[in-house]
Amino acid sequence: MSENTLVGSLIIGQSGGPSAVINCSAYGVIKTALENENITTVYGAAHGIKGVLNDELMIMDQEDPAELERMLYTPSSALGSCRYKIADPDVDDTDYKRILEIFKKYNVRYFFYNGGNDSMDTCNKISKYMSKVGYDCRVMGVPKTIDNDLAGTDHCPGFASAAKYIATSFMEISRDSHVYDTGMIILVECMGRHAGWLTAAAALAGLKGDGPDLIYLPERDFDMDAFLADVKRIYNEKKNCIVAVSEGIHYADGTFVSEAKTSGTDGFGHAQLGGLAARLAEVVKAATGAKVRPIELSLLQRCAAHCASGTDIQESFQSGKVAVESAVAGATDKMVGFSCTRDENGYHCNYELFDLSVVANTEKKVPQEWINEAGNGVTQEFIDYCLPLIQGETGMVKEDGLPRFVQLKRVFAK
Amino acid sequence: MSENTLVGSLIIGQSGGPSAVINCSAYGVIKTALENENITTVYGAAHGIKGVLNDELMIMDQEDPAELERMLYTPSSALGSCRYKIADPDVDDTDYKRILEIFKKYNVRYFFYNGGNDSMDTCNKISKYMSKVGYDCRVMGVPKTIDNDLAGTDHCPGFASAAKYIATSFMEISRDSHVYDTGMIILVECMGRHAGWLTAAAALAGLKGDGPDLIYLPERDFDMDAFLADVKRIYNEKKNCIVAVSEGIHYADGTFVSEAKTSGTDGFGHAQLGGLAARLAEVVKAATGAKVRPIELSLLQRCAAHCASGTDIQESFQSGKVAVESAVAGATDKMVGFSCTRDENGYHCNYELFDLSVVANTEKKVPQEWINEAGNGVTQEFIDYCLPLIQGETGMVKEDGLPRFVQLKRVFAK
Repeated sequence: MSENTLVGSLIIGQSGGPSAVINCSAYGVIKTALENENITTVYGAAHGIKGVLNDELMIMDQEDPAELERMLYTPSSALGSCRYKIADPDVDDTDYKRILEIFKKYNVRYFFYNGGNDSMDTCNKISKYMSKVGYDCRVMGVPKTIDNDLAGTDHCPGFASAAKYIATSFMEISRDSHVYDTGMIILVECMGRHAGWLTAAAALAGLKGDGPDLIYLPERDFDMDAFLADVKRIYNEKKNCIVAVSEGIHYADGTFVSEAKTSGTDGFGHAQLGGLAARLAEVVKAATGAKVRPIELSLLQRCAAHCASGTDIQESFQSGKVAVESAVAGATDKMVGFSCTRDENGYHCNYELFDLSVVANTEKKVPQEWINEAGNGVTQEFIDYCLPLIQGETGMVKEDGLPRFVQLKRVFAK
Repeated sequence: MSENTLVGSLIIGQSGGPSAVINCSAYGVIKTALENENITTVYGAAHGIKGVLNDELMIMDQEDPAELERMLYTPSSALGSCRYKIADPDVDDTDYKRILEIFKKYNVRYFFYNGGNDSMDTCNKISKYMSKVGYDCRVMGVPKTIDNDLAGTDHCPGFASAAKYIATSFMEISRDSHVYDTGMIILVECMGRHAGWLTAAAALAGLKGDGPDLIYLPERDFDMDAFLADVKRIYNEKKNCIVAVSEGIHYADGTFVSEAKTSGTDGFGHAQLGGLAARLAEVVKAATGAKVRPIELSLLQRCAAHCASGTDIQESFQSGKVAVESAVAGATDKMVGFSCTRDENGYHCNYELFDLSVVANTEKKVPQEWINEAGNGVTQEFIDYCLPLIQGETGMVKEDGLPRFVQLKRVFAK
């Protein structure tokens, strides 16, 4: 037993918006932890950190291994998720004391948090608190976000599957919209509050000649007049125009274009967006007189496991596995991420650890130089970056022609 | 050469809204016709009957056979579609004279029309006209409609693939909507103006425990108070409620629930529906105070070839093949359709010819006895009917992780 050896149980929690492959990373953690002799029990926190605070921990050792494997092909957070904003411990340490109490109760020495930006912030705060109070616990962030906006890592697990679904859907929508010779404008709204990665992924459809004509990302200020001029120009040329817009496009003063439709906020205090495509469609219809159809990809883009990227599934699983192996070997206060090469030898993905403090609360956006000058499309650099990520198909086995998702027993610890 | 032998060229046209497999039936016609010695040339009409009227006929013999085969995995109408309402020939026979002129010009002896209700009406009128003027031409309808509302046939090519996509998407949406413990109501709008088949298909997701809680079809009058009471009851019980609604739900007086959002009509004079889910969401939000998310499956449900049913692909191809074989053998004035058995020996599909006059303009709806008493769900009979149709997967080959759709050369006849 080396001096790095730490024996105890592990908690894995999932947080934030789900993705098609968040369960792949969680499964990577769970399977690897179940097989590791230093980890005594593997707990799944019900609804992320809320499950820890509420002492609702599922014993993953009690699940059937073959059933657990279905997590690889099951979208959304199988353990349940939350959008719980944990306080600054210097202001209010109530939650942290409670977390410590639970950690002690179950001899938790490994804490893994699977999520995006805000989740990495939670993870970072817990890590720093445990270190401050001298409780020996290895804390690891396991990234997940379709938004692809985590700093450090080349890309985020979950992004590629959403990108593949979006590109595939654009190809199909494009074919659909071209069947009539009577003209049509289609506006497709993709997720992404501040980062345009998902909307940019629509450009991949263009590789097959079925891509959008115009792409608008939140990385550039939106100008309604320029937008309408773009749409009119394309429509007049082709009698057809397909547009990809990010839900987060905003005017130069920062106002979201969708703002008038905002009707609530999520738990993190972000404005709840949506309805942008419908709103833009009215403006475009009035300006062109054309037949205009708004489409919102909505939740479908983040849960379409049936169209997940094989590469994404494999990398997500691997990130969970590497996180456990690294923690057992002594690492803590890190997020596992990817460092990738794309050259004449193809695409290679290496696993790397990033400091949680660096990752937490920094948003990585689409680089300005990957957006064209007119601000209505992306460059070849983006395509070269993104295309390797969507390769490969899911290994999902169907029953009765439909997916067969994991059904957990959910045996809770006392 | 038997007395039934008729030698000449063939025109295939596609009409109406596209589907994921309309090209499979067209390919069944084209491939079989190209291989038949009585058929001299195979023409694809650009944009349906408009292509005949405008003398825009693509020579399918000029296409590469391997490329043509990709039609099996390419959604929407590869030849182009139209929504052109042909006149009653007793009122105005201008179009018919023009069609006859084109038929004579290219020695067209086989006319095949691939579409839904309105297209079968067009096909029927042309058939009757050619017969009346004594022009020897065999006319066959090759059905297509995701709406599944053609009379006579057990089901319609295109329905099953849309049903499979809808059921799969409901399963994925259901997983997504259950990740938080904070409550959520999701309203998913499916296509279907007068027939609820597609919306009913959401029930298949329930077989795996991930189905909608409530289903509303246009076959029953919609009652807003009963609907709100249903939603509140489920939401209070489960803190979660998923609802499938048909775009065509209407009040007892026939008014579409979506009507206030109606902003145009399509070429056949139908009201253009859409935006229903968003509208209902506002009502539900006001009534419950819950977080409500409307989702419109929109065009995605009719063009998602990546999630097509293998059974649908095969049956669609076969229907085109049988149509050609039957016409060459002497049949005319018919639509090919399915007569199916479902019993202890499994599901069997037989191909049968139906009179065009019977099929044209009759809408087949979901039987009242397949809808539950409360009018908010479907019975096991519907499941038993629908489940065999969604079996099997597409054989779509991907390139670069994306579909590779057919690219026709489009060589036009002079």
